[in-house]
Amino acid sequence: MNAFLCKLDFNRKHPLYLQLYSFLVQEIKSGNLKVDERLPSKKAVCAHLGISQSTVETAYDMLSAEGYIRSIPRSGYYVCQLERLEPSEPSLSPPTALIKAPEPPYRFYFSTSAVDIKAFPYASWAKLHKEVMYQNPELLQRGDAQGDDCLRESLCKFLREYRGVHCNPDQIVVGAGMEYLLDLVLQLLDQDAVFALENPGYDTTYHIIRNNGRSVVDIPLDRDGMSITHLAQSGATVAYVTPSHQFPMGITMPIGRRTQLLKWANESPNRYIIEDDYDSEFRFNIRPIPAMQGLSLHSKVIYVGTFSRSIAPSIRVAYLVLPPALLQRYLEKFTFSSSTVSRFEQYTLCRFLERGLFSRHLNRVGNLYKQRKDHVIKQLEKAFGNQIAIQGDNAGLHFLIQIKNGMEESELVRRALEQGVKINGISRYFRGDVKQCPSSTLVLGYAGLCQQELSDAVCLLKKAWN
Amino acid sequence: MNAFLCKLDFNRKHPLYLQLYSFLVQEIKSGNLKVDERLPSKKAVCAHLGISQSTVETAYDMLSAEGYIRSIPRSGYYVCQLERLEPSEPSLSPPTALIKAPEPPYRFYFSTSAVDIKAFPYASWAKLHKEVMYQNPELLQRGDAQGDDCLRESLCKFLREYRGVHCNPDQIVVGAGMEYLLDLVLQLLDQDAVFALENPGYDTTYHIIRNNGRSVVDIPLDRDGMSITHLAQSGATVAYVTPSHQFPMGITMPIGRRTQLLKWANESPNRYIIEDDYDSEFRFNIRPIPAMQGLSLHSKVIYVGTFSRSIAPSIRVAYLVLPPALLQRYLEKFTFSSSTVSRFEQYTLCRFLERGLFSRHLNRVGNLYKQRKDHVIKQLEKAFGNQIAIQGDNAGLHFLIQIKNGMEESELVRRALEQGVKINGISRYFRGDVKQCPSSTLVLGYAGLCQQELSDAVCLLKKAWN
Repeated sequence: MNAFLCKLDFNRKHPLYLQLYSFLVQEIKSGNLKVDERLPSKKAVCAHLGISQSTVETAYDMLSAEGYIRSIPRSGYYVCQLERLEPSEPSLSPPTALIKAPEPPYRFYFSTSAVDIKAFPYASWAKLHKEVMYQNPELLQRGDAQGDDCLRESLCKFLREYRGVHCNPDQIVVGAGMEYLLDLVLQLLDQDAVFALENPGYDTTYHIIRNNGRSVVDIPLDRDGMSITHLAQSGATVAYVTPSHQFPMGITMPIGRRTQLLKWANESPNRYIIEDDYDSEFRFNIRPIPAMQGLSLHSKVIYVGTFSRSIAPSIRVAYLVLPPALLQRYLEKFTFSSSTVSRFEQYTLCRFLERGLFSRHLNRVGNLYKQRKDHVIKQLEKAFGNQIAIQGDNAGLHFLIQIKNGMEESELVRRALEQGVKINGISRYFRGDVKQCPSSTLVLGYAGLCQQELSDAVCLLKKAWN
Repeated sequence: MNAFLCKLDFNRKHPLYLQLYSFLVQEIKSGNLKVDERLPSKKAVCAHLGISQSTVETAYDMLSAEGYIRSIPRSGYYVCQLERLEPSEPSLSPPTALIKAPEPPYRFYFSTSAVDIKAFPYASWAKLHKEVMYQNPELLQRGDAQGDDCLRESLCKFLREYRGVHCNPDQIVVGAGMEYLLDLVLQLLDQDAVFALENPGYDTTYHIIRNNGRSVVDIPLDRDGMSITHLAQSGATVAYVTPSHQFPMGITMPIGRRTQLLKWANESPNRYIIEDDYDSEFRFNIRPIPAMQGLSLHSKVIYVGTFSRSIAPSIRVAYLVLPPALLQRYLEKFTFSSSTVSRFEQYTLCRFLERGLFSRHLNRVGNLYKQRKDHVIKQLEKAFGNQIAIQGDNAGLHFLIQIKNGMEESELVRRALEQGVKINGISRYFRGDVKQCPSSTLVLGYAGLCQQELSDAVCLLKKAWN
C-alpha cells in the first residue's frame, strides 16, 4: 500500500497536504497506484503518517476534484482511469523560423505613419489623464460598448465642424484602432459582400479583409481616384476608398467622382462605401474638403477615422460612423460587446477635444508639417533637379517621388538602404501586374523627421542615387 | 455672367476667398452655372469685385481641387459635370426602433461579471499610471503588435506560477478584451473550422463565432464537463471549453476528461482546444488546478485569460497564449497590426504585476469573495431551507441555485425583478430544446454586492418566491 511510503518533510514550508497530494499524483501517474485500486482509508493514513485527519481530507478532496480519484460512498476512494497523453513537442521554445527577422539597420525612415510626438502637448495630456484618474475612479466599471457618451458627443461635434460629417452620437462606435473597427464593419456587412479596393492602396486593409476570408477585387485608379467604370464592372458590393488623400497616390477625389461613387452605391440596397479619412486633418494648399459621408445624408457611407496620426501612434482610439441600417445590425449583433478602449483614455480625449486643445494642436502641427514638407521638397529639388517629379503633396503626411535616373524602384530602395535611409517603393501597395504600377516611384512620409534630419536624409539619398 | 452677382461682405470675419468659393459652389449646384460654361477670367473677377488676384486664385484652385471646375490651359476654367444625388433619408436621427430599450429598474443585480471595484487598490494603480505617464513619454510611439515585451514577460511569469501555463513571452498576444482576441483566434484557424461549444455555455462566445460566419455545434455537458462522446461524433475541429470553472454550471473539469480532450485534439493536426480561463484566479475550497495548456506541452491548446474580473471590468487587457503552429500563422498574417491596448496601461499593469501588487490584491479579494459567497449561501439556506439546491460553488464568482417551490425559471426571474432583484436564468445560456436545460435554475453572481446588499437581496428573493 503505497501511500505509506510517502516521506513527509515536517520542516518544509510546503504544507503537508500538498506534499501528500503531490506524492499521490506521482504514484497514480507512474502507475504505482493502479486504476480502480482502493486508496487506504483516511484514518489509516493519519495514523501511519502521524498527521491530522483534515490534512488527509484536503489532499483526498483535491485529488477527487481534479479527477485522479473518485469516492464511492461507504466504500472508499478509488484510482480513476487517466488517458495516456502522447508526448507532443519536446521543446518549449518556438521553432527558430518564428523569430522575427531583424530589420536591416537604418538612420532615417521616411515612414508614412510616423508623426512628430515631440509636437504633441504631452504635458497637458498627462495632466488631463491624471485629473480623470483621480476624479473618476468609477470609470473602473464597465462603460458603453460604443464608447462613453461624452466622448461620442465631442467627436460628433468635432466631425461636424472639421469634416462636414452629419451624424448623431448614437451612430458612433469608438474602438481600439482602425484595424479593429474594420474587422467589426466586416461583421456588419453580408458574408458574401465583395470588397473593391483601390489599387495601389492600403495593404493593411487588404490583409484585414483577406484574413477574414472575404472577397476582394482590385480596382485601378485614374487621376480622380477609384475608376467608376472598373468598379461598376467588378461585381463589388462595398467600395473602400480614401477620398481625402488617396493612399498612396495622394489624389484628392473631386466632387464629380464622389457623386458618381454615391450614385453607384445608391443603385442597390446592399452596396456601401467605406470612407477611410485617415489623415484628413492635414491639408496644406487647399481647404479641407468635407467628407463624402456628409454628401450621402449618412445612408450609404461608413465613415472611419483615427487619432493615431493626429495625436500619436500609440493612442489607440479610432471611430466609425455607421449608417442607420448598419447601426441597427450592430445593435442586434453586438449586444454582448464591451468597448475596447480604456475609459480613462476616452475621458482624457474628450476633455482634450472640449477644451480646444486638439484644435490648437492640429493648427500647430499643421504648420510644422507644412514647413517640413516644403523643406524636404526644396532639398529634393536642389539635389535631383529635373530628375525628380513630385506628386500628391497637397495634403496628408506623405507624397510620391518619381526618380528619372534610369534606376528601377527596387534598386532605388536598396541603394537608399545601403546609405541608411529606409523608404518604401510604391509596388508594396500594388497588387497585380507590376508593369501597371508607376515606375521608379517611392512613397515618402516626412512627418516623423525634423528639418535637419530631412536635410541629412536627402544628402544620403543623393549619394545613393547619383 | 453670374460671378459678378456675388455679394462680398468685406466686414465679415469669413475670408473673401471662402465667400467667393461658397457663392460659386451654390451657383454650380443650383445650375445657374451650367456644365461646360466658362467662368469669367480671374482678372475680370478681380476688377469687378475689387479684390486681389490671389483671392480669386485661391477660390478657383479650391473649386478645381474639389472637382467643381476644371482648368483648360490657355483657355480658362469650365464647370464640370456633377452627378445628381438622389435624395436619401430625410432625417438625421436614426429610426426610433434603434433606440436601446431601457432595462426595467432594479435595486440589486446578481451579475456574473460584476466585481467589487472598491476592493481594487485604485490609489496604487493611479500612482503607477501617473509614474509611467511622467517617466515614459516615448510610449506615444507605436509599440509591439503583440504587446510590449516587459508586459509579456511578467505575464508569462505570472501564468507559469499561478496557472501552470508553459510558454515563452513570444507566444503571448495582449489585446483589448477577450472578444477582440477571440475574433483574432478565429482568423488564425481554418475558414471551415467547426466550433464545439459547451451547452449551456457562454452566450458571448457563441455570438462572436456566429458573427464571424463560422459554424458552431452545441455539445451537452455531463458531470465532468463537455461530453467527449458527443464531441467525437460532432464533426467539430475546435473545442471551446472553460475547464477551471465551467460557465455557467461551475464544473471543474477533472484530469481524466482533460486528458480525453487532449487526446481528441491530438488525433488530427487541425484540431485545437480553446481554453478560456476566465475566472480561474478565484478558487475557494480546492487548490487551483493548473491550466490544460500546461498538460499539452503547448501544442494543442490556445489559452485565453483576462484582467476584467481580477482587476476591473473597464481594464481592457486580455491575453492569448498561442501554440507554435498558430503563432507562426499569426506572424505571417498579422504583420501589419498594431496593439489594441494603450502602452501606458500595459506598462502600468506590468509594474503592478512585478511589484507584487497583483498577487496581494488577488489574495485580498479572494478572501473577500469567499466571505461574500459563504454569507449569501448561508442567507439563502436560511431563507429557503431544503427548497434550494446549490451547485458549482467551489470556484469562480458565481454559482447555480435550483429552487424547488414549483415555479418555473421564467416565473422566478420575473418575480425577483418585481421585487427589484435582477438574476439570470440558466436558459439564457442554453441553446436547443429547453426541456434538456436544468429546470428552475438561476445563475447567481455575488462578487459585486457587499454582505449587507446580499442580505437585503436575499430578503427580497424570499418575498418573491414564497
